[in-house]
Amino acid sequence: MARISEIEDALSSGGGRRGRRAGGGAEARRAKRGGGTTPKNRYIQRQIPPYEILSEENLTLIEENAETVLQEIGIEFRDDPEALAMWREAGADVDGERVRFPRGLCRKLCETIPSSFTQHARNPERSVEIGGNNTVFAPVYGPPFVRDIEGGRRYATIEDFRNFVKLAYMAPALHHSGGTVCEPVDIPVNKRHFDMVYAHLRYSDLPFMGSVTAPERAEDSVAMAKLVFGEDFVESNTVMINLINANSPMTFDATMLGALKVYARHNQACIVTPFILSGAMAPVTPVGVMTQTLAEALAGLAFSQLVRPGAPMVLGSFASSISMQSGAPTFGTPEPALVLYGMAALARRLGVPFRSGGSLCGSKLPDAQAAHESTQTLIPTLLGGVNFVLHAAGWLEGGLVSSYEKFVIDADQLGMMQTFAGGYDLSENGQAMDALREVGPGSHFLGCAHTQANFETAFYRSSIADNNSFEQWEAEGARDAFTRANALYKKTLADYQAPALDPAIDEALRAFIKERKDSMPDAFA
Amino acid sequence: MARISEIEDALSSGGGRRGRRAGGGAEARRAKRGGGTTPKNRYIQRQIPPYEILSEENLTLIEENAETVLQEIGIEFRDDPEALAMWREAGADVDGERVRFPRGLCRKLCETIPSSFTQHARNPERSVEIGGNNTVFAPVYGPPFVRDIEGGRRYATIEDFRNFVKLAYMAPALHHSGGTVCEPVDIPVNKRHFDMVYAHLRYSDLPFMGSVTAPERAEDSVAMAKLVFGEDFVESNTVMINLINANSPMTFDATMLGALKVYARHNQACIVTPFILSGAMAPVTPVGVMTQTLAEALAGLAFSQLVRPGAPMVLGSFASSISMQSGAPTFGTPEPALVLYGMAALARRLGVPFRSGGSLCGSKLPDAQAAHESTQTLIPTLLGGVNFVLHAAGWLEGGLVSSYEKFVIDADQLGMMQTFAGGYDLSENGQAMDALREVGPGSHFLGCAHTQANFETAFYRSSIADNNSFEQWEAEGARDAFTRANALYKKTLADYQAPALDPAIDEALRAFIKERKDSMPDAFA
Repeated sequence: MARISEIEDALSSGGGRRGRRAGGGAEARRAKRGGGTTPKNRYIQRQIPPYEILSEENLTLIEENAETVLQEIGIEFRDDPEALAMWREAGADVDGERVRFPRGLCRKLCETIPSSFTQHARNPERSVEIGGNNTVFAPVYGPPFVRDIEGGRRYATIEDFRNFVKLAYMAPALHHSGGTVCEPVDIPVNKRHFDMVYAHLRYSDLPFMGSVTAPERAEDSVAMAKLVFGEDFVESNTVMINLINANSPMTFDATMLGALKVYARHNQACIVTPFILSGAMAPVTPVGVMTQTLAEALAGLAFSQLVRPGAPMVLGSFASSISMQSGAPTFGTPEPALVLYGMAALARRLGVPFRSGGSLCGSKLPDAQAAHESTQTLIPTLLGGVNFVLHAAGWLEGGLVSSYEKFVIDADQLGMMQTFAGGYDLSENGQAMDALREVGPGSHFLGCAHTQANFETAFYRSSIADNNSFEQWEAEGARDAFTRANALYKKTLADYQAPALDPAIDEALRAFIKERKDSMPDAFA
Repeated sequence: MARISEIEDALSSGGGRRGRRAGGGAEARRAKRGGGTTPKNRYIQRQIPPYEILSEENLTLIEENAETVLQEIGIEFRDDPEALAMWREAGADVDGERVRFPRGLCRKLCETIPSSFTQHARNPERSVEIGGNNTVFAPVYGPPFVRDIEGGRRYATIEDFRNFVKLAYMAPALHHSGGTVCEPVDIPVNKRHFDMVYAHLRYSDLPFMGSVTAPERAEDSVAMAKLVFGEDFVESNTVMINLINANSPMTFDATMLGALKVYARHNQACIVTPFILSGAMAPVTPVGVMTQTLAEALAGLAFSQLVRPGAPMVLGSFASSISMQSGAPTFGTPEPALVLYGMAALARRLGVPFRSGGSLCGSKLPDAQAAHESTQTLIPTLLGGVNFVLHAAGWLEGGLVSSYEKFVIDADQLGMMQTFAGGYDLSENGQAMDALREVGPGSHFLGCAHTQANFETAFYRSSIADNNSFEQWEAEGARDAFTRANALYKKTLADYQAPALDPAIDEALRAFIKERKDSMPDAFA
């Protein structure tokens, strides 16, 4: 442990701009140690304040309404007698599967949740801090389809899965390998979690997410992590973060509760997320969505602390609006952004890390619609102060598709967010008074000493944008961003080199997977 | 006057969400009076606070640095002996054309600038309030080229100019007709201002901008405005806003000073904008850009108050970064956003209205690059609290091109900003506790009374986004946003109906133009 935290302190690169500039030192150290990893932003330490829209009075009103929901309406904990017994023991009113909570009980129980925690990566230089002023970007989670220009839209395979793990590993602005970067439907449903967790461990050295689709798959994820990190380390540290969705409205089911219990007991982190399409699983108004989200999250988070006080948890919020024409979820519209800003403030008041946002869109292609919607989600994500950002890259078509091209386009935008979060350089050099004095009226700054000294790192350098002249752009084929991204993702995969993994650990992982897979027949539903 | 302000008070629709919902009443009134105008958001009255990043201490530091620039380095006022004499009279140190200012002089002179003013439109329902919590969106300004899918990139004509005036008139979220929506290069350079101002007056009833390319063209613009609004009205009210760029660094030229003097003397508004490509016309650091922008703007704004104390003025900031590869300006990157937020705060402290931002991009096509860059500019524009937003729709390729398709795509995004700026509905209905009580755990909200009552206006409805199923989208031709926007702009132009204009006024305008055009030979440079 001492070794890991020493390295982490030494490398704590942090805040975008400064981090990016100071990157040479960290990179140099990595290269010296022969780590073989790519230059990487560790995570974002925001140097900018969160954007607060709601007054304290209004936030209190929403909190009181959420307590009323918990007290009067309650939350159902389905098919889990153990959970009901725990709630009865904790002082809640249990009526069948409906649990009603004395005002303030859930909030009180949440006090043992750490306000910030470290998720360790197998490469300690890649560990992330979740909470506080930090923002961690993770890839898209869950799509059954993938898309790229040549292949079009098709079912995802484990090969695609590995490719997205590699793309996240290669992207400087992605800090996390994520979980189900796409659903590998070519592998039996009861066995694919082995291949997914293995891919994160083998093809990346970033922190990752475990399986939540059944309690025993959560146990398998923990067992595999122990083969890599060591049994003692896993039990006393957090090496996985896991996505637990509420069955909104106001319901948790046995599958999610089961996975939550497994992870909490092993001290692994969970994100408790009410998943809401506004108007379907919650009221149509942003304040109504926030009230219900807070109530559901409070109940789930409080339950985790009954399982293991102090277990690291994240308050999640996923809220989309829906199309009045088609009923489909819509993204990048004003209403979800309002929900995000409000929920971020409520999570800060509760003192727990917050997950929301990403690069969400409803578009079928990485076109202007996708870009608008993604940015209209991503900027609130950063300015709201989200701590853990799932779906930060690759999400297309309302989460049905993992897009290769959009992945690299989004990753470029994440880099910009990292720089923006670095805020202003107010040093003497940043103030640039020498430059102003040197140049004076009517001249230009291109050649002055200050420009020469700062030019190389002065501006974020996009990997996607074409800023050449019109004539040059035309001569190069008049390609749009989508087409350029196709070339970039292929080049990135071609350049990929796997991080080192101890062969003994690799062998142990493979042996474990073979044994477990052989122990059960294939299942496809 | 009484009539105009009464109507304005009665119609003061304001704040996005509430304004949008209350729109029926205003529309009904318009229809009753037979105004023949399209449903329109008047302007945005922001219900959300500005996003403040810099501390008071840091803002003061930048203000002090700007005073140092004004005092030590000074600003050149070129080829305008009258301006130099006015500065000498005001107590500045004039050395050749270099003017140095005692600390605090410019800021003191700016005290007579109104913190907010009304720009009257010929249709009083379309007048806008510039300053305070208000945001006014105006189209792209200045491109010599236009582009659409069929025609590609080509030089703009007066026909294109009229089309963009019509598109702005038809777009609910554009509040202003703008100025040089494209440069009609088919008309002699010394005569095109007549056709441009006429197009704004004839094909729209929105507020508009006058010519600034020569003092006599500014006088022509004022004369034409007087034919429409009446001589007395123009001299005592503001009916035009005009774009005065500084020749950064630290220089004003005679052309711009001449136009500024004309407009200020007639009580017409000017936007004094240092136009900065960071690293070329200013230092490479955001704080350096802000320091210089503030110094230049202070000098220009203060000068306007020497011409006519109380003349309405706007502090402008246009700052892009540049590409290290090509030297071209780049947009939507983090550094210009930082400059925008900072300049907005500095303008608020000075107490003058602020212009910046828009839907800027460097992309050659309305693709993902254009959309990312535009949104990365537009969101800071709204959250920063910009009062007057030039280039809010149609800007492409670094301002070289007015794009038909991007115009309607941007206009859709502007509508989203209007809704977002409405903030949260915290009424009983907004809190939706009845809905939560009615539905309860495990059910859905689609059919509940609250959803039924609110569904129609609950979510912003995009005119561009496709939210249909994948199958339906494919059956309809798998069109991207660019292609859909092509159809939308054509439909909009086909649906266009001109607002009424008194035939006697129209005749007077035409006669004036003919007389003035006949009085001079064509010039082409």
